[in-house]
Amino acid sequence: MSQVPVFYRQRLLTPGPTQVPEAVLLEMAQPIIHHRTKQFQAIFAELSQRLSRVFRTKNPVLTITGSGTTAFEAAQVSLVKPGSRVLTISCGKFGERWQDIYDRYAPVLDIKENVKLDVPWGQAPTAAQVEQILKDKPDISVVTIVHSETSTATACDLKAIAAVVGKSNALLIADGITSVGAMPVEMDGWGVDVLVTGSQKAMMLPPGLGYVGLGERALARLEEVPVRGAYNLDLRAWLKGWKKNDVPFTPGVSLIRGQRVALEMIENAGLETVWARTRKLADATRAAMAAMGLKPISQSPSDSVSGAFYPEGVEDSKFRAALRDKHGVHIAGGQDGRGAKWKSSIMRVSSMGYVDAGDILVAMAAIEAELITCGCKIAPGSALAAAGKVLGA
Amino acid sequence: MSQVPVFYRQRLLTPGPTQVPEAVLLEMAQPIIHHRTKQFQAIFAELSQRLSRVFRTKNPVLTITGSGTTAFEAAQVSLVKPGSRVLTISCGKFGERWQDIYDRYAPVLDIKENVKLDVPWGQAPTAAQVEQILKDKPDISVVTIVHSETSTATACDLKAIAAVVGKSNALLIADGITSVGAMPVEMDGWGVDVLVTGSQKAMMLPPGLGYVGLGERALARLEEVPVRGAYNLDLRAWLKGWKKNDVPFTPGVSLIRGQRVALEMIENAGLETVWARTRKLADATRAAMAAMGLKPISQSPSDSVSGAFYPEGVEDSKFRAALRDKHGVHIAGGQDGRGAKWKSSIMRVSSMGYVDAGDILVAMAAIEAELITCGCKIAPGSALAAAGKVLGA
Repeated sequence: MSQVPVFYRQRLLTPGPTQVPEAVLLEMAQPIIHHRTKQFQAIFAELSQRLSRVFRTKNPVLTITGSGTTAFEAAQVSLVKPGSRVLTISCGKFGERWQDIYDRYAPVLDIKENVKLDVPWGQAPTAAQVEQILKDKPDISVVTIVHSETSTATACDLKAIAAVVGKSNALLIADGITSVGAMPVEMDGWGVDVLVTGSQKAMMLPPGLGYVGLGERALARLEEVPVRGAYNLDLRAWLKGWKKNDVPFTPGVSLIRGQRVALEMIENAGLETVWARTRKLADATRAAMAAMGLKPISQSPSDSVSGAFYPEGVEDSKFRAALRDKHGVHIAGGQDGRGAKWKSSIMRVSSMGYVDAGDILVAMAAIEAELITCGCKIAPGSALAAAGKVLGA
Repeated sequence: MSQVPVFYRQRLLTPGPTQVPEAVLLEMAQPIIHHRTKQFQAIFAELSQRLSRVFRTKNPVLTITGSGTTAFEAAQVSLVKPGSRVLTISCGKFGERWQDIYDRYAPVLDIKENVKLDVPWGQAPTAAQVEQILKDKPDISVVTIVHSETSTATACDLKAIAAVVGKSNALLIADGITSVGAMPVEMDGWGVDVLVTGSQKAMMLPPGLGYVGLGERALARLEEVPVRGAYNLDLRAWLKGWKKNDVPFTPGVSLIRGQRVALEMIENAGLETVWARTRKLADATRAAMAAMGLKPISQSPSDSVSGAFYPEGVEDSKFRAALRDKHGVHIAGGQDGRGAKWKSSIMRVSSMGYVDAGDILVAMAAIEAELITCGCKIAPGSALAAAGKVLGA
């Protein structure tokens, strides 16, 4: 296949996959090692320890071959009690996916009711809403929540929601796919029972690994709930392997090597420093968007991704093609779901992981230039001025 | 983590993961691209076409994020008819795994009976055995078979078995995890309904992708069978994505890039040439093993992996550690299963993928040297003489 040669640097600012540091790419290009060796076990053990520190937990974080969806589905099927209700909270496309998964499994896992809390896209669910539902339906055994809803660039107050769920008999399974490593998440400190993330976001790796942190209550639930269906997705098998620095099925050895290096980079920089930096880049992005007169999509913005509605007259696919072809800047559009149809009406820019001020500044300058090309009335330089003010502060 | 520095070349001759060509490692180290782009779609489209050619089918071969087990489980859960029987054929550890998966799913997928054909380890199931069972139990809707049983280095006559199953109402799901790309498999020519493989064997990639080829009868069955459980493992979702050169959940973009290059290498060399070469390396291995007086583990040997029982007095873990530490040669031991306990009694050497005569010769010389160290009576040089005779022929 002949690939279009692109000489100039390409900037990937989509909210997953995200850019991967060169050191990680080269680590993954090392010769393959076998997974039943001391060398691999040492790498895996170190990765597991680093994962627990980044999840802010003293408990296991399992490494699962697959996508973030694989990992989240595994948590959903492994932890629900037969005959119970589940509460699935959605404020965007990913929340809807976790709702769909329990709908799909309801008959085979004997789920009495899939209680759905649907919050308008762009808004975040509140602890009070969750508390009320748990009071009304005390036989809910699992609550799913999205910490950072990538499709709407929206973050909820996970700490407050975890506190409310912690007082009930339900376990909280939190989607931290675009929050872990990007913004403050304290798994043990906040009492998050299960925290899931994927490799291709703030963890600075290509897609291919999912991670599941299991708190005390989740570990107890695993002992208690019978296994139904799920073989590869059975968390018990992964937990058993984890205890021996092993995995039940041939693991992604290259990705695991790369993830160890990426987490070493994050820990060497300091996790709080990475959080602060991600926030600063998001703040700069949002300031630039505001300076260009763009309306934000979220009323409760996440630090990992920022989104804005297109002004009238801007056509999504043409606009993003111009960013790619003329500026080497790759950003995301929107998605359609039950809660909204945003496929062609929004743009989203990531600030997660291996992205720096230069990437954001180039992206903002490119967005400004192409909006002006589309006829938007923007004073040239406003986006960079606004972003620069934040970055320099 | 400080890693033991190993200056000399390490040779990975385990039957998965296997060695990955340098060109593939470097391709995977290219900057990450987003999967919803024309660039990725072109790569994916080319990969899909190459996969179909290597599977010898004109039908779709799906690329699934996960291990070979993920892909096989997806086929098992997506294709079984409710209320029907399944026939799971085993002659080793992997056959047992596919049996276990249907045991696990029996209640949720409404499987009437999991009919198990257990063939002694080291032997291959026959078409006559399968024919008899299908005659006795005409409501079998799925038959699972392992073409090359890695745990016992044994190949069955997949062509004959596919012919028998093709005359019944059952679909054949064949585990080609260590056969596709290593030895002759003609998906369409033999009428194999579903053929599964993984990336980390003869496909010359790190672990992380599974492939599922779907024949006409399997595609029809997918339309007909209701979806139960399985979300990520639902082949319908992957097939729907495949038609648009897309995947339903964020794919392993680096692995997919690498796989395209690895398949290009295989096709440039010629698939038949690769099969012949794999066979020659296996023949050389077996000849060397025989010259050292080792008893083969299989009565129906596979070309992708060769195995022998240890002579008395050779302790598995010490022996393989000596191969690794003194010679840089990594081979596999055995596994325990229901059919046999081979964990410490056998050695296995792969001839799949990116392995050449030099690797095999170094491995054979090392095995000979360490067997002599263990007190075995072997004339020095016999292993290389026997291997050389085959390779030179």
